[in-house]
Amino acid sequence: MFKWAKRLVVGQPLRSERLGETLLPKKLALPVFCSDPLSSNAYATEEILRALSLGGLALLFLTPWIAASVAVLLAVVVASYRQTCHAYPTGGGAYAVSRANLGRNAALVAASALLVDYVLTVAVSVAAGVDAITSAFLTLKPAAVLICLFFVAVLTLVNLRGIKESGTVFAVPTYGFIAVLFLMIGWGLWRTSSGHAPQAESASFGIAPVHSAAGVAVLLLALRAFSQGCTALTGVEAVSNGVPNFKAPKSRNAANTITIMGGITIAMFAGVTALALIAHVRVADDPAQLIGAPAGYEQRTAIAQIAGAVFGYGTAGFLLVQAFTAAILILAANTAFNGFPILASILGHDGYLPKQFARRGDRLVFSNGIVILAALAGLLIWVFDASTSRLIQLYIIGVFVSFTLSQTGMVRHWTTALQVTRDPAGRRRLHRSRLINGVGAALTGVVLVVVLITKFTHGAYLVVIAMPAIFALMKAIERHYRRVGAELEPDPGGMVLPSRIHAVVLVSRLHKPTLRALAYARATRPDTLTALTVAGSPEDVRALQGEWAQRGIPVTLTELEAPYRDITGPVLDYVADLRRRHPRDLVVIYLPEYVVGHWWEHLLHNQSALRLKARLLFQRGVMVTSVPWQLTSSRADERVPQQPTPAAPEPAGVGGRITEQ
Amino acid sequence: MFKWAKRLVVGQPLRSERLGETLLPKKLALPVFCSDPLSSNAYATEEILRALSLGGLALLFLTPWIAASVAVLLAVVVASYRQTCHAYPTGGGAYAVSRANLGRNAALVAASALLVDYVLTVAVSVAAGVDAITSAFLTLKPAAVLICLFFVAVLTLVNLRGIKESGTVFAVPTYGFIAVLFLMIGWGLWRTSSGHAPQAESASFGIAPVHSAAGVAVLLLALRAFSQGCTALTGVEAVSNGVPNFKAPKSRNAANTITIMGGITIAMFAGVTALALIAHVRVADDPAQLIGAPAGYEQRTAIAQIAGAVFGYGTAGFLLVQAFTAAILILAANTAFNGFPILASILGHDGYLPKQFARRGDRLVFSNGIVILAALAGLLIWVFDASTSRLIQLYIIGVFVSFTLSQTGMVRHWTTALQVTRDPAGRRRLHRSRLINGVGAALTGVVLVVVLITKFTHGAYLVVIAMPAIFALMKAIERHYRRVGAELEPDPGGMVLPSRIHAVVLVSRLHKPTLRALAYARATRPDTLTALTVAGSPEDVRALQGEWAQRGIPVTLTELEAPYRDITGPVLDYVADLRRRHPRDLVVIYLPEYVVGHWWEHLLHNQSALRLKARLLFQRGVMVTSVPWQLTSSRADERVPQQPTPAAPEPAGVGGRITEQ
Repeated sequence: MFKWAKRLVVGQPLRSERLGETLLPKKLALPVFCSDPLSSNAYATEEILRALSLGGLALLFLTPWIAASVAVLLAVVVASYRQTCHAYPTGGGAYAVSRANLGRNAALVAASALLVDYVLTVAVSVAAGVDAITSAFLTLKPAAVLICLFFVAVLTLVNLRGIKESGTVFAVPTYGFIAVLFLMIGWGLWRTSSGHAPQAESASFGIAPVHSAAGVAVLLLALRAFSQGCTALTGVEAVSNGVPNFKAPKSRNAANTITIMGGITIAMFAGVTALALIAHVRVADDPAQLIGAPAGYEQRTAIAQIAGAVFGYGTAGFLLVQAFTAAILILAANTAFNGFPILASILGHDGYLPKQFARRGDRLVFSNGIVILAALAGLLIWVFDASTSRLIQLYIIGVFVSFTLSQTGMVRHWTTALQVTRDPAGRRRLHRSRLINGVGAALTGVVLVVVLITKFTHGAYLVVIAMPAIFALMKAIERHYRRVGAELEPDPGGMVLPSRIHAVVLVSRLHKPTLRALAYARATRPDTLTALTVAGSPEDVRALQGEWAQRGIPVTLTELEAPYRDITGPVLDYVADLRRRHPRDLVVIYLPEYVVGHWWEHLLHNQSALRLKARLLFQRGVMVTSVPWQLTSSRADERVPQQPTPAAPEPAGVGGRITEQ
Repeated sequence: MFKWAKRLVVGQPLRSERLGETLLPKKLALPVFCSDPLSSNAYATEEILRALSLGGLALLFLTPWIAASVAVLLAVVVASYRQTCHAYPTGGGAYAVSRANLGRNAALVAASALLVDYVLTVAVSVAAGVDAITSAFLTLKPAAVLICLFFVAVLTLVNLRGIKESGTVFAVPTYGFIAVLFLMIGWGLWRTSSGHAPQAESASFGIAPVHSAAGVAVLLLALRAFSQGCTALTGVEAVSNGVPNFKAPKSRNAANTITIMGGITIAMFAGVTALALIAHVRVADDPAQLIGAPAGYEQRTAIAQIAGAVFGYGTAGFLLVQAFTAAILILAANTAFNGFPILASILGHDGYLPKQFARRGDRLVFSNGIVILAALAGLLIWVFDASTSRLIQLYIIGVFVSFTLSQTGMVRHWTTALQVTRDPAGRRRLHRSRLINGVGAALTGVVLVVVLITKFTHGAYLVVIAMPAIFALMKAIERHYRRVGAELEPDPGGMVLPSRIHAVVLVSRLHKPTLRALAYARATRPDTLTALTVAGSPEDVRALQGEWAQRGIPVTLTELEAPYRDITGPVLDYVADLRRRHPRDLVVIYLPEYVVGHWWEHLLHNQSALRLKARLLFQRGVMVTSVPWQLTSSRADERVPQQPTPAAPEPAGVGGRITEQ
């Protein structure tokens, strides 16, 4: 039943050979790897405006300067990652680069940051995508959390089925988003130049300052606005991760793709910010800050307000902007559904996460990672009420931790390379590369500190707690696996064969399963064979003895007292005693077990045998053998050969019969 | 940890020998067996008033007539059960009597009724007891459900510990209740006769009729009031159940106790009803019906209003009435905690309920029955918001079903006895007995119909659904056990010993657990021994083969392909194939298993072996042997002898070493 439902939703299992890689030309690699950084434009500008609005309208004049700083930072990071593409043609994620250059601990810090980041990418992108939808249809606002969870569920199912990344599926929303945004920017700027500058619906509102906008406070607000604007940088490292998927020349194509992406992002970001200023878009963290807003006014996203001002609400242009924004954001969330499970599988393979993460499911995807990612992202969306601006507070720290580590690793990489390079031209190139990555490392490091300071109290402390916790957990898991591995390492001396075998058959009643267990135990020709029963009541024991004698069973029946009615204790004591008397021998316990076909049948049969089995496994020198008896109900869907016909001749000297008269 | 907490709450296990019976003199038997019927006086009168109030004040004149009918019915039932005490000195519960005289199906109907009844006894008695408490302290009313659940939990724990029924514990609340109620009745009547008749706080209220009080409606309301008044009869059969616990002459003492109980109950019921009429107690199903009640008026129970009118609120007399009422009601709930688990254990023993119910727990009590009873009663209290009057609607049906069946059974019993008795004096006695039980059966049968008609739509339909459902469930369980029993019955021909043994050791990696499994499997000297591995990836297989060869392991390694990465399928196919080729042989699968000490360690180790084991047990002619490897963490609290010293000499010809170079 469950199986059938699973097949329907997830699909038939796939053969391992079908795991292959498709090499992507640049024009398909761009949508596949760049949807995440490009989609950041959906919220980056708005986040700057939001932060500055805390100081009232007075601070909005800082917007272009902050946007320019973000653009410069983006350019530096892009330049840095171009280096990574060249240096690590097999994929240069922050984990791989840190591991190669900075050692295990730094790599694990990067991994913790990346794991947190992937979860937040899903949460933020889905929340922002749903913002785009609810900004177009304001009546859907109250259902935002539900819609978010629906999209997370859809992404989970799609990824559990496993998607053949055809590239085309990615191309439409990504190129659509680029096209429609540049169209909006162009049309808006043209209208401005022709004297009909677009005006946002909120252009006339005032904004009540929450913080004083003077002295140090201005600096802090500006830094905070810059931090929030840095969301434009998220996802830049995706290309460097995906170098192996590019067509040859891989590194070169990847580097060029990252440059193109950087150019588009910067242009788009600049355009959107310019239009937001021209159209006087007003957004505030708390709608109550807005002065002059009509009663019941619901804030739309900055992009929606701009599109509304440029094209008019409800027009095809407006709806296309919202539709493509939502689409590219959901697509960006999907990239995390690729990244997280792969990283978790590498960590699982390296022994830092449970090994299950390294196992591919029925459909050749890492199902465990997908499910965990979806659960965590769904939880965050639910806890933060699907609020993009609150989720974003958690987002940047992890991004900049991995940026900084990755760039620092690259500096180390070039330094090492310099030590073995003698050729002057090569050394010059290496020096230049190291300079670029050094600047990148320094800048992203500084931004990391700024982000930490300005966002700590706004929710980022959660990430500051989560990352070390994940780090510690991964270390603990690795220690556990290492300890177990050492424990299981075979000794050069090998294993001593036990001298003799004592078979003990547990008997509760004299029925077919017991007879089968006795027959099977006898067939293994043990050195001693005991039938062991635990006395329920004196009458039960007498009845069993009577039947035993009457059937003439050629095995002695040993009774144990159970003064506390619990059968486990006496059996364990008996076995421990046997082991004490014969420490070099092996004890094999035979447990007759019912096999039932329906879960509810378990409720009707005492499971004391299972409890006993679990406890027996803790004893050394003991093997526990289940002798199954398949009840009719369990055979419904089995095609195995039935019991051999009793008429068949038996080989002499080996066979024999237990029981009868 | 869990074990330690359990010991603290439930206590140390008790030895089976400590199960014994204490014989009770009449003066202790009365409180032990009669707390349930006596405690019904706490709500019976009020229920009559409530039902009549639906027709407004106009119908209250019917109260004495209805109370008188209930008293007559009670007298008849008491007379009937005196007969049962004489006829069934080993205990004459409805199940036993029906089973002996009316066959299995009738007995199962009685059992279903009794099971439902016990649950409702707990729910109603606890709810009514808490009513007594909240009537004394009105501020506790909003917490009624919580207080009820607290008492249910306390009763559960007390009964899980097992109580030595000392009798004295029961005597204080029961005799205290009787004394204080008669004191109240006497004092109230004396005040009335001296011209200072007590007046209830609600005496001045009017009551708005909900139903019209004319024609057929009057009859229906009167019948409904009668049905509700019949709650005074609940628990009468307890004495006939407990005959074996009486001092000799058992039957006679039991019969006299039941008569004394009947006398006290009738007197108390009549007195309380008289005082309720004298003091003009007004109670209504819906407080909104009360006309002239002050704002925020909270209804107290009828008994509380009478006690308040007679003694004055807050006086010692009032508080004693409430305290003893609460105490005897909780005690009455406790009787169900004795009755239900014992009945369930009998049904479990007879195969109508899961056998676990027939098993005594650590403290010699039937723990499973106690827990189930508490859970069901707690659920009812929670669903019905601890409302006594709503719960009572469900209560009476089961009681009268078992009365009717029991009395009918007794008629059958005397008829059978008449067939073998020739002595005229004896026949006369039998005829008289049969007449008494016949009247009882007829009357309770009629009341059952009345109850069904008047209460069906008020919640009783739940019981009408539940009882047949329980009946059908018990029949199904019995059928299942019977079918399994037949399936397990040994054939006279006995069991065929398998000809040869094929040992298959499952290998995932070459570590100590694998070597141990190989050593143990070899020690059993099977006819064939195969090491089986399922290929994860070609590299893994090559690495394993390399190690295998390098260590010179004298067992061939067989590899299976796993195109879908699932190891279960290929292994099952391999085993099925082996069985097909050797249908007369036995296949023994050896599974190396880790034994871990902490639950979280399970998360870190792939459990595919467990899944495989569960599936293998469905194959016939297959035994599954777990070869445990105890990780250090699992040995914390084990005192078993460790691995034998490898230096010890080995017996020649049997031992040997696997592996090494």
